[in-house]
Amino acid sequence: MPNTPAIIPVILSGGSGTRLWPLSTAARPKQFLEFVPGGTMLAQTLARAPADSFGEPLVICNAAHAELVLSQCAGRAVNLILEPSARNTAPAIALAALSLPPEALMLVMPSDHVIADVGAFHRAIASAQELAQDGWLVTFGITPTGPETGYGYIRSGEELGSGLWRAEQFVEKPDAATAQTYLDEGCYNWNAGIFLFNAGAYIEALSKHAPEMLEASRRSLAAARREGASVHPEAEAFAACPSDSVDYAVMEKAERVAVVPVDMGWSDIGSWDALHDLLPKDDAGNVLVGDVTALGSSGCLVRTDGPAVAVTGVDNLIVIASADAVMILPRGQSQDVKTIVEALKAAKHPVMKR
Amino acid sequence: MPNTPAIIPVILSGGSGTRLWPLSTAARPKQFLEFVPGGTMLAQTLARAPADSFGEPLVICNAAHAELVLSQCAGRAVNLILEPSARNTAPAIALAALSLPPEALMLVMPSDHVIADVGAFHRAIASAQELAQDGWLVTFGITPTGPETGYGYIRSGEELGSGLWRAEQFVEKPDAATAQTYLDEGCYNWNAGIFLFNAGAYIEALSKHAPEMLEASRRSLAAARREGASVHPEAEAFAACPSDSVDYAVMEKAERVAVVPVDMGWSDIGSWDALHDLLPKDDAGNVLVGDVTALGSSGCLVRTDGPAVAVTGVDNLIVIASADAVMILPRGQSQDVKTIVEALKAAKHPVMKR
Repeated sequence: MPNTPAIIPVILSGGSGTRLWPLSTAARPKQFLEFVPGGTMLAQTLARAPADSFGEPLVICNAAHAELVLSQCAGRAVNLILEPSARNTAPAIALAALSLPPEALMLVMPSDHVIADVGAFHRAIASAQELAQDGWLVTFGITPTGPETGYGYIRSGEELGSGLWRAEQFVEKPDAATAQTYLDEGCYNWNAGIFLFNAGAYIEALSKHAPEMLEASRRSLAAARREGASVHPEAEAFAACPSDSVDYAVMEKAERVAVVPVDMGWSDIGSWDALHDLLPKDDAGNVLVGDVTALGSSGCLVRTDGPAVAVTGVDNLIVIASADAVMILPRGQSQDVKTIVEALKAAKHPVMKR
Repeated sequence: MPNTPAIIPVILSGGSGTRLWPLSTAARPKQFLEFVPGGTMLAQTLARAPADSFGEPLVICNAAHAELVLSQCAGRAVNLILEPSARNTAPAIALAALSLPPEALMLVMPSDHVIADVGAFHRAIASAQELAQDGWLVTFGITPTGPETGYGYIRSGEELGSGLWRAEQFVEKPDAATAQTYLDEGCYNWNAGIFLFNAGAYIEALSKHAPEMLEASRRSLAAARREGASVHPEAEAFAACPSDSVDYAVMEKAERVAVVPVDMGWSDIGSWDALHDLLPKDDAGNVLVGDVTALGSSGCLVRTDGPAVAVTGVDNLIVIASADAVMILPRGQSQDVKTIVEALKAAKHPVMKR
């Protein structure tokens, strides 16, 4: 792995998704849970950029999660930026970029993705490094494994070097037919939200395409409270910052954007169905995690972090149990978690308060 | 209701069934839980024999459940016989009979049955009273509502009076075809294990058909420790008592056994399926008890005494949750609870230790 200059892992840990409810909650979202053996998703994200070949990580997270983040760092020195409010990814990365020297290379990674082939990831980083040093905003494009409708796609344009392409277009989540044409054309990759660029290049792009965001981030940092390795940006200034994703605010608009296609066993575990697909199954196609007893059942995902769960004679069911909530739905319909969560929120159900 | 002489409700609360696991457990079996609105099954059993028309109840239970029993008596004076070990129903009733004057009328009732039409029950008791005073062992036979294979049947013989018949034969749980012939013949009723007889008649029948049992019960009571209204029969003597049901040990063998057919909305809630049948359903045929959210689901029984449960898009499922265990199986297959319980016991699972 490259180590001069050190690449700074910039880890976005602000997510509070509920697609993996009831395990993922506002108090303990997905990145602080273990779904694939080897530690929590955040711990595995940190381990992907080890101390011997990367700089000191910078984690941007919700202020309420500071302790949780530190508990996942295994004693490694980590700098924290504690967001006083959630403003999506572009402002989070702005806070990071403004905290680093302009020439610092930032490896921006969501904290809740799986990468099975870390070697492939490291090779892609190495191949992207020169472009990033030159001021390109480099995005890692995931080689599609099927006509997925759940991701945005990046269309490759002219070749910039071996395995490096200009990112010609960012496109929204397609319908199934469009996704198939993308797959057939072969020049589209999934947008995973993993980037490499230098701090100065990002700030320059922001100044051009999202000057208000840059200004608010700057003011918020200027008035920040610092406490050891933690930075608390000033709340009022940050609250005034427009909320936007790095894709919309910067990547789709900036000129020198490159894509490095990479096939690295990536998944964002965007649903319980995705987790069932990802994990090894028993002979009956079941994925059983935790204190689970399954008799005469097949094709199920049953996971508990709370009560013992026993199932018998059921097929293709997803059962997720925590200490205070149990959710059951058919496999293939795990998008309905959203409907359940909305119903419980509308009912002001106590389990939604954690 | 008759009140001279006072009929003594003798309530058998020694059961520790697991057919309603995970709610019913060794520490808190079925009779101490509420399945039908109106209190626990034991409380409803006591209420069926109210203080204004019945004598002081005598409850025979596992010594470990004394507190639980008293918590269900709502301040009513109750005598307890605390069994040092479980020896089935015949010895339990022997302990009760030996504690009462020979002429005392005993209304023997399991503590975990539902009787919707208490008026019909009281009328049946009134009509049976004279026979019982005369030394007959009277059993209440439930008018069958279908060809049930889960109960024993009692065949009526000669008529002894209005609505009173000699019990000609006790037959085991039949197969479906046999059950249908019983139904067609019209002279069979379900054996619900509810009896009326005087203490002396029961002791006499025991002395004839189960003398060892009578002797062991007598010795155990003679050496009993008494504490207020509680009797602790001596453990070693009682342990030596043969274990048998009142049906096998006495009813099938005694000569003067009568049956009073009664249609009183009876159920022993012998399974989760039976509970689904019994309780009122929503428009989609669901029975939802406790903190349950059901979306797009039909024909389900979902009950929780522990975590919140949310189901979506599932049909004909039984989901039962307690604080430490969740069980899921298809409706119509609730006999498989037994298989689950056996598997968990074989695995020495901690949830089986409570």
